[in-house]
Amino acid sequence: MPPRKPMTEETCPVARTVDVVGDRWSLLIVRDAFDGMHRFGDFQRSLGMARNILSDRLHRLVQAGILETRPASDGSAYQEYALTPKGESLFPVVVALRQWGEQHLFSRDEPYSRLLDRKTGKPIPFMAPLDSRGAELLPEKTEVRKVPR
Amino acid sequence: MPPRKPMTEETCPVARTVDVVGDRWSLLIVRDAFDGMHRFGDFQRSLGMARNILSDRLHRLVQAGILETRPASDGSAYQEYALTPKGESLFPVVVALRQWGEQHLFSRDEPYSRLLDRKTGKPIPFMAPLDSRGAELLPEKTEVRKVPR
Repeated sequence: MPPRKPMTEETCPVARTVDVVGDRWSLLIVRDAFDGMHRFGDFQRSLGMARNILSDRLHRLVQAGILETRPASDGSAYQEYALTPKGESLFPVVVALRQWGEQHLFSRDEPYSRLLDRKTGKPIPFMAPLDSRGAELLPEKTEVRKVPR
Repeated sequence: MPPRKPMTEETCPVARTVDVVGDRWSLLIVRDAFDGMHRFGDFQRSLGMARNILSDRLHRLVQAGILETRPASDGSAYQEYALTPKGESLFPVVVALRQWGEQHLFSRDEPYSRLLDRKTGKPIPFMAPLDSRGAELLPEKTEVRKVPR
């Protein structure tokens, strides 16, 4: 297999992002962190993943500045993981993944977890790219301008 | 390693989505498809990935209803891959990944590819979840209501 392009040569922001969070486990750990999960054991129970893989992914997310470690909030000896501001700014990514799943991966009467606006108690509105006037921007109305090589 | 929960038992839309597109290669193939790429050889050159892995990922994306195959538009014997409407609706996912990368993974003077609004020629506005009044909805203003077991 040809070697992967080093991240610093990659001029596409999508590619750089998926190099950091583009795997199933990292995305689900970030999702759980948004749901208020902080501890190794809680992530492990939630995700049912092997301890060594969880440990590796948490380490990588800390190295990437997405999670940070801190002493446990209850004063116990446990270490906790929390989203940094950089991690918090993955919120649109998690919402986009969620809303695509809601649209396409459940049958009509199948129940699924909902992301609610705390203030209204209602599911949050559908998120889409908007143009400068606030109208939904469809992919065919956009184009990528690549960096000249 | 404990077995992965079968997708049909998974009540979280984020989890179902990452089971379908939550890997680096699938996300990059979808990105290239949005950029107008249609052919095996073009994906391979763009992504520099092994043919057998590309073949597997394309097959899975077709199985998932994200891509469809069609005869080549130039009448040649090649087969082309194109996004279905279900695949097109991954646009917010790709935009969210892109915009996070733009915010966090490039230094100030480092060039990166831009997603432009064709009409204005300008980069598309930042996309974020909005509340029912159109104000940006921060993660701490939301909560997940899980499906009771």
